[in-house]
Amino acid sequence: MDQVTLKSLAKELNLAISTVSRALSDSYEISAETKEKVHSLAKKLNYHPNPYARSLRKRSSFTIAVILPEIANNFFSLVINGIEEIAQANGYHVLIYLTHESQEKEAAFIRHLTNGRVDGVLMSLSGETEDISHLHTLKEYNIPIVFFDRICESIHTVKVTTNDYESGYQATQHLIEKGCTAISYLSSSKNLSIDQKRMQGYLDALKDHDIAFREEFIVFCSNDAELNYNKIKSLLSAAEAPDGIFASVELLAILCYEVCKELKIGIPGQVKIISFSNLRTASLLNPSLSTITQPAFEIGKQAAAALFGAFRKNETALKDEKIVLISELIERDSTK
Amino acid sequence: MDQVTLKSLAKELNLAISTVSRALSDSYEISAETKEKVHSLAKKLNYHPNPYARSLRKRSSFTIAVILPEIANNFFSLVINGIEEIAQANGYHVLIYLTHESQEKEAAFIRHLTNGRVDGVLMSLSGETEDISHLHTLKEYNIPIVFFDRICESIHTVKVTTNDYESGYQATQHLIEKGCTAISYLSSSKNLSIDQKRMQGYLDALKDHDIAFREEFIVFCSNDAELNYNKIKSLLSAAEAPDGIFASVELLAILCYEVCKELKIGIPGQVKIISFSNLRTASLLNPSLSTITQPAFEIGKQAAAALFGAFRKNETALKDEKIVLISELIERDSTK
Repeated sequence: MDQVTLKSLAKELNLAISTVSRALSDSYEISAETKEKVHSLAKKLNYHPNPYARSLRKRSSFTIAVILPEIANNFFSLVINGIEEIAQANGYHVLIYLTHESQEKEAAFIRHLTNGRVDGVLMSLSGETEDISHLHTLKEYNIPIVFFDRICESIHTVKVTTNDYESGYQATQHLIEKGCTAISYLSSSKNLSIDQKRMQGYLDALKDHDIAFREEFIVFCSNDAELNYNKIKSLLSAAEAPDGIFASVELLAILCYEVCKELKIGIPGQVKIISFSNLRTASLLNPSLSTITQPAFEIGKQAAAALFGAFRKNETALKDEKIVLISELIERDSTK
Repeated sequence: MDQVTLKSLAKELNLAISTVSRALSDSYEISAETKEKVHSLAKKLNYHPNPYARSLRKRSSFTIAVILPEIANNFFSLVINGIEEIAQANGYHVLIYLTHESQEKEAAFIRHLTNGRVDGVLMSLSGETEDISHLHTLKEYNIPIVFFDRICESIHTVKVTTNDYESGYQATQHLIEKGCTAISYLSSSKNLSIDQKRMQGYLDALKDHDIAFREEFIVFCSNDAELNYNKIKSLLSAAEAPDGIFASVELLAILCYEVCKELKIGIPGQVKIISFSNLRTASLLNPSLSTITQPAFEIGKQAAAALFGAFRKNETALKDEKIVLISELIERDSTK
């Protein structure tokens, strides 16, 4: 089947290509009668404008990129569903790029996007990212960016997060109220500002409740699951092991459960656990997991809405703004 | 910052644009010395070819589409990671389209892809899809397609699945060996060939073990979680309730756990459960869930490899071939 093009439509209608093009873009130069003829043939032959030709003409790809660390994670899956909903409503496609926590991959993706492939970027930083020069590149090329969750504080734009500091404070206070006096914090990455805020909440809650801070109780994890498992195993096997754990991400809480199973440590009897998590099965775990649950779908929607707002106003630099959506502490058996 | 183009490189080097273009594409017509000059300036100025201009010229978008029902599901997340690995190694980007089980969305995406936006499609059918005329459209436009998991039997191309029939037979036999005599099958969709195969395995295992088939024990589920929950609740509240359940997808097994919790039905005491699942937390559930676990990452890799094989050979119609990767039955406490 031959592709239906402006040229073939023009030939069939015995019109100039430019007339057909203008009719399709609803130009005032073309009569209503001609427009009707062109539209009805275009519909009949299932004509779609070539997206690349259209992109070159309008400098618009009708595509946005979502750059994020991973999707085998309930939080990010839900965020993507939220972004999808807004993008589809605007007739846009979503390109998903997975960094797998690598700064190098993140920078390579950004370099690739600087030549018109997408109209805008939604991004959650990789855990490894320390050098952010690649993010400035995006601004130089006038491609708007909106951050969600793992935001970059020093880039001026819209940033959508949950109330990380307050949630970290609440989670720690919850463990204290349940009788914990030796509380550990599992950090997913030293570099991420949201992780630092969650940790600051933890530190301030300890201080406000006169619980001495112990450096060995802060465990910095990485993208290496085996290494993380061993770090958590060392923590829980130590002579002075914690009686409470606050995990910054659900994967670390899952590793805690696995370590406790191996070491036959009772949850919540010997150690209580609470975690940031959108895990679908949190309530079905043995024991059910107490969580700080983020409004993940809404975070995706709001981040996408900010970007499309910029498109509509034809802005490339968004004003510096923080949108904070509130998480919920859900108490279950792991902190009983 | 001005965009670096072929034109600006040519001006700076005092060469013809066509010379610069040929040098960058390593043409034999250009001297090694000139190539060296062009490449070193291109590198210095961080030149990238405009992807849309390149696409029009080469009819290649360097992008593949993955069309699938959802990603808030461990199986599909792992498949995407496998696809990503192969796509990145080939310098390709992955566009992810979520159908949310809607035939209408699936058809709309396909229509959108018929004009050069992508070089190929990897696809897992929506559960609703009955009319497959949109898939023929793709063939008419010479865009190669490879199916994975939820394949379309009647389209001739490469199809990557697990051994669905044998796995369905094994899962059912496992329940029988554990003493179940009233076994229910939870189907995720009547339309999907993989679901029909899993069900056929279930039916044949019942027959081979002289267990009478009971129509009310086959529950056809949909994309509506609340409706599915109620169907499972009716099944388990009935006077003659099953003592074994085989779920075709993990979401249905999770709903069974939730229903059993609400109705205070003991697993595995009153009902044993086994499910197709790649759930990360299967071993941590209460009780731990027996699973048929698919090689999801490998399924993604093989599907993508088949597509890139076709690109390399410049084929648009792939030969009809089934690649079957074997699943593993992992026995845990839910069938003890």
